[in-house]
Amino acid sequence: MKTKIGTLYGIGVGPGDPELITLKSTKILSRVHVVFAAASTKNNHSLAVNIAKPHIPETTSIRMLSFPMTKDKKETRESWAENARIIINELEQGKDVAFLTVGDSMTYSTYGYILKHIKASAPHVAIESIPGITSYQAAAARLNIPLVEGEESLLITSGVKGGDRLRQFSCKPETVVFLKAYRNVEDIISAVDETDLFQDCVGISKCGLPGEEIVTDLKEFAKRPPNYWTLIIAKQKKKSAPLNANSGKSQPHRRYAEAVAVFAESM
Amino acid sequence: MKTKIGTLYGIGVGPGDPELITLKSTKILSRVHVVFAAASTKNNHSLAVNIAKPHIPETTSIRMLSFPMTKDKKETRESWAENARIIINELEQGKDVAFLTVGDSMTYSTYGYILKHIKASAPHVAIESIPGITSYQAAAARLNIPLVEGEESLLITSGVKGGDRLRQFSCKPETVVFLKAYRNVEDIISAVDETDLFQDCVGISKCGLPGEEIVTDLKEFAKRPPNYWTLIIAKQKKKSAPLNANSGKSQPHRRYAEAVAVFAESM
Repeated sequence: MKTKIGTLYGIGVGPGDPELITLKSTKILSRVHVVFAAASTKNNHSLAVNIAKPHIPETTSIRMLSFPMTKDKKETRESWAENARIIINELEQGKDVAFLTVGDSMTYSTYGYILKHIKASAPHVAIESIPGITSYQAAAARLNIPLVEGEESLLITSGVKGGDRLRQFSCKPETVVFLKAYRNVEDIISAVDETDLFQDCVGISKCGLPGEEIVTDLKEFAKRPPNYWTLIIAKQKKKSAPLNANSGKSQPHRRYAEAVAVFAESM
Repeated sequence: MKTKIGTLYGIGVGPGDPELITLKSTKILSRVHVVFAAASTKNNHSLAVNIAKPHIPETTSIRMLSFPMTKDKKETRESWAENARIIINELEQGKDVAFLTVGDSMTYSTYGYILKHIKASAPHVAIESIPGITSYQAAAARLNIPLVEGEESLLITSGVKGGDRLRQFSCKPETVVFLKAYRNVEDIISAVDETDLFQDCVGISKCGLPGEEIVTDLKEFAKRPPNYWTLIIAKQKKKSAPLNANSGKSQPHRRYAEAVAVFAESM
């Protein structure tokens, strides 16, 4: 009798707080046979595993897959292909498998690449992706500042090339989130400043975790060591009249002109 | 003795599937005294309450707040202020209160307005916002299509004014999501087509719910009645080489040029 092929679940475990995982993900984690996560080749650490651990039974196998941190495209591609093969091998033995990713499974995730490789090389495999809360959603919630309202637009972009993505847009979205901002905070802040549309700063370290820290001056970043989990949220000044003209004084941040920087230390 | 003031929890209950709520939200719902949700003045129906109901104890009071669907700004503002007062009244009696919102609490939510009103008129109230999974995250996961990767950008925008927000951007983000697209699907599709960057269509009705339906031709929308829960995701054709040149045939959708439309019927 032919072995039934297992299902691959791509799970976004949320941004860090173990309670910001969905019920769906916890239920899947309670019954899969193998849990995979990406680890840097430098060490075997995984923030995703730390977040998901309370929901993984002790008897479940947790396996770390090495993804080299390199700019060599051939090496990167080979590591994806090799890791996809390892996962497919488990699935073909009839095991259900989860692949963990920090934040959302479909937003700048290693799982996105693994998903493409497995769809391409093993189209017979059933794949179910489960969304997760992103870091920028958690940051906005932590700060009680809406990301986007009414007719506004929200741009999520990479900060790897500094502020250039923002400079490219002649029409600036009302809210801009720079992820992966850690090496280019100064240039991102320059790009934000150049527009003369965004102002005021708030930063969070270890958002929602013990040791959380809020920084209200983006220039503070220049004095800190680069941190992989840095993100910056910039909000435009509102054109509309204030909701309540008498209430401005009591606000911890100016309500109609907010730029927010959030970073969480790598754990 | 002075009564301790309650805490307001702004809860994003996720896009529709009752399991796509976070653990944190279910725990809060199990212990608050009152649960509020927005209802159209036309009826007392709330999708948010339907989603959250399995996590609300039977003894907890569920109260619907009327938010008139009107373009009259004065009327809208008065209804926010009145609803904020109702919530503050419960908090001042020492009750912990949840305000439910479909999707994420910080993304195009009624809660965002209530939050501002309460911050302004009752700055002594403790407020905790809990993020939720958005409809576009759920749609991307359902379709197994990454929203954004590598150095790409993702634009989340309103479709209320048709495709104009996309037309305003000289440099087009790699992925564009139009929410609230229900009355302007044709103009949005026109704007997407004009760029000559996006192609191929997939639609989902009742994403993740019984009766889910996938539509692969955006022009189908023109034949359907307008639906409040319509969203459109358009993905640019990739400039990079395919991961696996031999694998294109087995894909359910073209992998490097995807425009996705998703809509879920109002329940």
